[in-house]
Amino acid sequence: MTTPYRRLDKRQAAVLLVDHQTGLLSLVRDIEPDRFRNNVLALADLARYFELPTLLTTSFENGPNGPLLPELKELFPEAPYIARPGQINAWDNADFVRAVKATGRKQLIVAGVVTEVCVAFPALSALAEGFEVFVVTDASGTFNELTRDSAWSRMTAAGAQLMGWFAVACELHRDWRNDVEGLGALFAGHIPDYRNLMTGYDRLTAGK
Amino acid sequence: MTTPYRRLDKRQAAVLLVDHQTGLLSLVRDIEPDRFRNNVLALADLARYFELPTLLTTSFENGPNGPLLPELKELFPEAPYIARPGQINAWDNADFVRAVKATGRKQLIVAGVVTEVCVAFPALSALAEGFEVFVVTDASGTFNELTRDSAWSRMTAAGAQLMGWFAVACELHRDWRNDVEGLGALFAGHIPDYRNLMTGYDRLTAGK
Amino acid sequence: MTTPYRRLDKRQAAVLLVDHQTGLLSLVRDIEPDRFRNNVLALADLARYFELPTLLTTSFENGPNGPLLPELKELFPEAPYIARPGQINAWDNADFVRAVKATGRKQLIVAGVVTEVCVAFPALSALAEGFEVFVVTDASGTFNELTRDSAWSRMTAAGAQLMGWFAVACELHRDWRNDVEGLGALFAGHIPDYRNLMTGYDRLTAGK
Amino acid sequence: MTTPYRRLDKRQAAVLLVDHQTGLLSLVRDIEPDRFRNNVLALADLARYFELPTLLTTSFENGPNGPLLPELKELFPEAPYIARPGQINAWDNADFVRAVKATGRKQLIVAGVVTEVCVAFPALSALAEGFEVFVVTDASGTFNELTRDSAWSRMTAAGAQLMGWFAVACELHRDWRNDVEGLGALFAGHIPDYRNLMTGYDRLTAGK
Amino acid sequence: MTTPYRRLDKRQAAVLLVDHQTGLLSLVRDIEPDRFRNNVLALADLARYFELPTLLTTSFENGPNGPLLPELKELFPEAPYIARPGQINAWDNADFVRAVKATGRKQLIVAGVVTEVCVAFPALSALAEGFEVFVVTDASGTFNELTRDSAWSRMTAAGAQLMGWFAVACELHRDWRNDVEGLGALFAGHIPDYRNLMTGYDRLTAGK
Amino acid sequence: MTTPYRRLDKRQAAVLLVDHQTGLLSLVRDIEPDRFRNNVLALADLARYFELPTLLTTSFENGPNGPLLPELKELFPEAPYIARPGQINAWDNADFVRAVKATGRKQLIVAGVVTEVCVAFPALSALAEGFEVFVVTDASGTFNELTRDSAWSRMTAAGAQLMGWFAVACELHRDWRNDVEGLGALFAGHIPDYRNLMTGYDRLTAGK
Amino acid sequence: MTTPYRRLDKRQAAVLLVDHQTGLLSLVRDIEPDRFRNNVLALADLARYFELPTLLTTSFENGPNGPLLPELKELFPEAPYIARPGQINAWDNADFVRAVKATGRKQLIVAGVVTEVCVAFPALSALAEGFEVFVVTDASGTFNELTRDSAWSRMTAAGAQLMGWFAVACELHRDWRNDVEGLGALFAGHIPDYRNLMTGYDRLTAGK
Amino acid sequence: MTTPYRRLDKRQAAVLLVDHQTGLLSLVRDIEPDRFRNNVLALADLARYFELPTLLTTSFENGPNGPLLPELKELFPEAPYIARPGQINAWDNADFVRAVKATGRKQLIVAGVVTEVCVAFPALSALAEGFEVFVVTDASGTFNELTRDSAWSRMTAAGAQLMGWFAVACELHRDWRNDVEGLGALFAGHIPDYRNLMTGYDRLTAGK
Repeated sequence: MTTPYRRLDKRQAAVLLVDHQTGLLSLVRDIEPDRFRNNVLALADLARYFELPTLLTTSFENGPNGPLLPELKELFPEAPYIARPGQINAWDNADFVRAVKATGRKQLIVAGVVTEVCVAFPALSALAEGFEVFVVTDASGTFNELTRDSAWSRMTAAGAQLMGWFAVACELHRDWRNDVEGLGALFAGHIPDYRNLMTGYDRLTAGK
Repeated sequence: MTTPYRRLDKRQAAVLLVDHQTGLLSLVRDIEPDRFRNNVLALADLARYFELPTLLTTSFENGPNGPLLPELKELFPEAPYIARPGQINAWDNADFVRAVKATGRKQLIVAGVVTEVCVAFPALSALAEGFEVFVVTDASGTFNELTRDSAWSRMTAAGAQLMGWFAVACELHRDWRNDVEGLGALFAGHIPDYRNLMTGYDRLTAGK
Repeated sequence: MTTPYRRLDKRQAAVLLVDHQTGLLSLVRDIEPDRFRNNVLALADLARYFELPTLLTTSFENGPNGPLLPELKELFPEAPYIARPGQINAWDNADFVRAVKATGRKQLIVAGVVTEVCVAFPALSALAEGFEVFVVTDASGTFNELTRDSAWSRMTAAGAQLMGWFAVACELHRDWRNDVEGLGALFAGHIPDYRNLMTGYDRLTAGK
Repeated sequence: MTTPYRRLDKRQAAVLLVDHQTGLLSLVRDIEPDRFRNNVLALADLARYFELPTLLTTSFENGPNGPLLPELKELFPEAPYIARPGQINAWDNADFVRAVKATGRKQLIVAGVVTEVCVAFPALSALAEGFEVFVVTDASGTFNELTRDSAWSRMTAAGAQLMGWFAVACELHRDWRNDVEGLGALFAGHIPDYRNLMTGYDRLTAGK
Repeated sequence: MTTPYRRLDKRQAAVLLVDHQTGLLSLVRDIEPDRFRNNVLALADLARYFELPTLLTTSFENGPNGPLLPELKELFPEAPYIARPGQINAWDNADFVRAVKATGRKQLIVAGVVTEVCVAFPALSALAEGFEVFVVTDASGTFNELTRDSAWSRMTAAGAQLMGWFAVACELHRDWRNDVEGLGALFAGHIPDYRNLMTGYDRLTAGK
Repeated sequence: MTTPYRRLDKRQAAVLLVDHQTGLLSLVRDIEPDRFRNNVLALADLARYFELPTLLTTSFENGPNGPLLPELKELFPEAPYIARPGQINAWDNADFVRAVKATGRKQLIVAGVVTEVCVAFPALSALAEGFEVFVVTDASGTFNELTRDSAWSRMTAAGAQLMGWFAVACELHRDWRNDVEGLGALFAGHIPDYRNLMTGYDRLTAGK
Repeated sequence: MTTPYRRLDKRQAAVLLVDHQTGLLSLVRDIEPDRFRNNVLALADLARYFELPTLLTTSFENGPNGPLLPELKELFPEAPYIARPGQINAWDNADFVRAVKATGRKQLIVAGVVTEVCVAFPALSALAEGFEVFVVTDASGTFNELTRDSAWSRMTAAGAQLMGWFAVACELHRDWRNDVEGLGALFAGHIPDYRNLMTGYDRLTAGK
Repeated sequence: MTTPYRRLDKRQAAVLLVDHQTGLLSLVRDIEPDRFRNNVLALADLARYFELPTLLTTSFENGPNGPLLPELKELFPEAPYIARPGQINAWDNADFVRAVKATGRKQLIVAGVVTEVCVAFPALSALAEGFEVFVVTDASGTFNELTRDSAWSRMTAAGAQLMGWFAVACELHRDWRNDVEGLGALFAGHIPDYRNLMTGYDRLTAGK
């Protein structure tokens, strides 16, 4: 009577980046800022690397919540960009849902700020409509462990799967032979320990 | 085979504040006191802001458990106030259940001290009677992480949804356009980082 | 599709204290020793207070695992005491199961050392035979958080309910009026903050 | 509607050690290195002690991921050893699945690095094919608590059972009388506190 | 060869509040925001309560650092307010030093954001000029424990004394009989546990 | 240029227990309550065991601060008991200082609540008058780590020595042969792990 | 009798980067890898920004310790680069000391891996020769908190000053007006929260 | 006015291992048991590797404190072994002091259980007699952080230097060229991450 294994498929998945705005980021305290920034950019990079349809959305960008992280805008210049006029749950915005459905994808990879609202609300709505939802836990942030754990509990009870960005990348890629260089570059760019392994390896095998 | 998304609706929700008494508060050590006080008052403020029917109840108020936090009494002068003569589970008190049912609401937002007793017992009883139960985790406190996690496990297994007060407010409000000023004031009053964002924003846009 | 509320009933409950032996206690590092000792004795005191049938069992008491905590033996001089000759899962010992069944109780309150073995194994076995199982998380100890969380996950997946000893006492007692003095003494004896509340209260109301 | 008790049986269980490679081990930061190394070797020792069919597999052993821990290779000189040419999920490698099925075992004890990929992917795949899966949480490692907890959530939702290596050993052994010396030696070799208990016991009973 | 006891004296002390600006506050992550806001306001309230000369200073208030916390400006409408045009160490600003010296006080109570710069630099400079310096550790904030501990080490090595705001208040007040009501109100306003003690006490002694 | 070794001597030492009052104890959150209560009673027991002159003092015992822990009063029925009428620093109370000096001791073992005020203030004053001061860190409590570390820094800079109660007992006793039974009983009464060692030892050597 | 304020001066300071090698970095576990990498690069960037003489040194670069972080080599192509043939304390290498002295600077800013060896040894040696030493605590890493705290204790006892890289930058820069753009860029490049402040500020003031 | 750099010299140093007994080890809870055992054995191995005079001493070895770790006895079969008849401070035992002085060494490397007694007492006594004392912090253990930090404070105030075993080894060895193989083997035997680096390096350079 368990949740079956829903496996990410790069032909079925889309990425939703919800409210990674400069003001809202100051609220995130359940994850250290250097790590969080790195994780968000890693998720964005993998979305591009796997050429997944990606949606950007923001809440009140001209108010205290602040603008979207400029890097995200730059990485996805062609992506649907829904600046919501007021809806807190992005799924309450018809343009957003339309854009999601326009991707034709049934697997939604979601991350955002703050976890229990900007991530959990659309995740729960999408699950209710039959989408498979994969929450990228380490690219989503919130006030503290209490609110994070509450959000995780609510989403998993409704059938969401929790994953870190590294697991998302690995499940999408399936086999290193699909592109060793590309996946390696993605990891080297966002995992210092992996980068160090590669640097050390390259040095030792340089003359071989 | 998962718990479906039960979404809070301000026309369907009532708030139960259980045993936030001055003596019992000295038992709370799973959450820092400044934060806890702030969260409890935030929940109270949002109950008023959304005009949710609210019930107050206490256990042995004239004994060592101490009186209800005076702020709560003042915020809800007209609310049903059930000083239970001895029942530990508020749901065992007929007046309390009657008052809950008199609200006509099916969604119960519950918080209290201590989590595994004053919150969990009525939450489990209400679930057994078909209510939807939303536990406000950050406005509920207890002895330590062990007892908290045990209580959360028991309540979620029975179908309760865990939320922080911020998520409750956002899910009830639905759309900033319903009242930007009001929701903003609620957040500024209880989230220092949000207040700072607003102060900075106001300064920069003052002359615009 | 959730676990229904199984409520502890003092006429239906029995207590199983599994392997609280002096040697094994040196393995417990997921809970501070002063608190752990206090919790184990609190659980024992409540078992006596509510006159619950209580079983003691040990594993290899004459070897390195060491003897049962002498206090437990003294508190329950008449209790069935099963010194298992080798079975790791107490439920594999026919005498133990016979003693459990002889109580005629269907609700088993279980605690022991170490959590993932001495508690989890009989808990899972009892659940499989249709008993209701309540694990006293704060009177059970183990090596570290990893093994504890693993054990909790396995037991709750099988239907066990997690509770701290304080919640057990409150759920069994139901109503303070059943015996204010007795329950108060139990709490004062094992919760320093509660004891302090009572001492302060007594002082202030002494002359009233 | 709960997961029933699947009990490990030494005649039904096999062990899968996935990607415990020297380079990947530098990524593990959710568990202290001395403890982690000890746990991995403890799991290997118990696999040998109970004569469980054991499989070794690695990913890109000649690249930055580095070679398998030499101790594992030495402990299982005859074990199937699948150096995967690129598949990230070991279950995508036909040789690996064939080797698993050749054991004739239905209970798979899995550990590896990193938890959310090298452990979770084959665990989920095996569950989907009807195997019983037991994840050895303390012999598996990953980047941090966020990714670990995400992986645990995903695996338990699909029906995996979480256990530490000590619980695995105890559940397989069933009864100390099957071999007191052997199990004692396994514990003394990997649990310093248990070793100390035995040393102290031996000293005091030496002349008896 | 130790630092002698320099005791705070309300006739000798002045308070320096350095760069508590809304933008800079988003950098503070070594102390939880609810507690930090409370501590800063507590320090401000005690400065007023003891009528200590108080100085406000800011760095680049019209840029990203943001404006001073409005509450501080409101509490000290007459205080010297030095908006530094660029000096990072407030002590490098002649107006600031002049204002400090104009107070005629030799004991400087300092707090600010961030600890290792805005607090440590003027603290070290003031010590070098012969002032007694008392750093209010819990009303000062910074990036993380590493930078905090480094700052504390540097300041104490130079002779600064570390105190929390509560200790500052107690040392200044000397004797409750100087004003029981006033000090009690200060504590009740900023220490939830103390407030609860007072509320409970008042209830029990109300009719006495 | 270091602090020389001042060694505790049972003929030179006195114990000062400052403000261990039931209300103030609710403020203590830098140490878990079961452990803290145990440590305070351990210190009291050792004071009696070594027959050290002991002083009790309280602040506003009839107000919200609450009465002295009754156990302390009972353990020292003949001890000087100074209920200070208002002085926050006990050393500002002439009766207290007189009582200290009347002991004729030059080594003061100090503990109390809260650390940075009730302990630090008299400790600093006593050091300034030439006493040797030994702060019992684990029998003193305060709001949080920030205030504790600040207090420790201030006291050690002035020459105080920090010790736990166990170290105090050991340094006073010097040699087990002075009384094996007595010291053993003190440890067994307050260190669960030590008690377990003794119980196990007694069992194994019972028939020897 | 305290350490006087030694203030960093950009005309007097040099930077020593000791053994930031890819292999040694896998040993660092007292600081999260994303943060650590960021801090090391921030220190390097500030060294360039302030045009401080900078020395690079490594230990056994062709062995398991691995090569220097390539980014450091690239940032300082002209810097003295001392690949030590075996000396563990860089100060035992005559070339290194000669290069240090050739800078003509008396203030040494030191960071490296691991803290208690590669940083502490040359720091202690330099102090013994009369240099002023500033240890960059957040750009230095080691095994765990025990070894870090031990190293800090040893170095501060000998007169070293502990600072984070942000404090170093601020103390060197003295006044924002020396170059607002440059310092801002340094901070934006390495402090996500600061970058967010700037992005939000720029947006709001864009049209002004 | 700081502590000068006392540098360990293998011709001047001796090692004191104090009370690493099986029973006392069960009291150690400020450091995880796998790591602690590893550190103690690492210190012992380095004492042998550098052929440092080493002393073993125990307290009440035939009582509950238990026997010395057998590995230590085996590693140093010829070492002076002082089973103290009762002195708690090893320095109060004339045989022990005589054995220390017989080594002719002035630098004492000390570790033991528990830190604040078995380590701190002889360390303070030795300092008072003019020895240089180096406390091996990670091979010494105690009840909790409070007692550990108290002990560290007391010892450093008296002039002791705190070091981890790795720093001790490095400072004694001075130059890898003195014996690359030997030092490498010591590190590989006790630092899993270092062992992994070496294994990976050996694999990659095997055919070179």
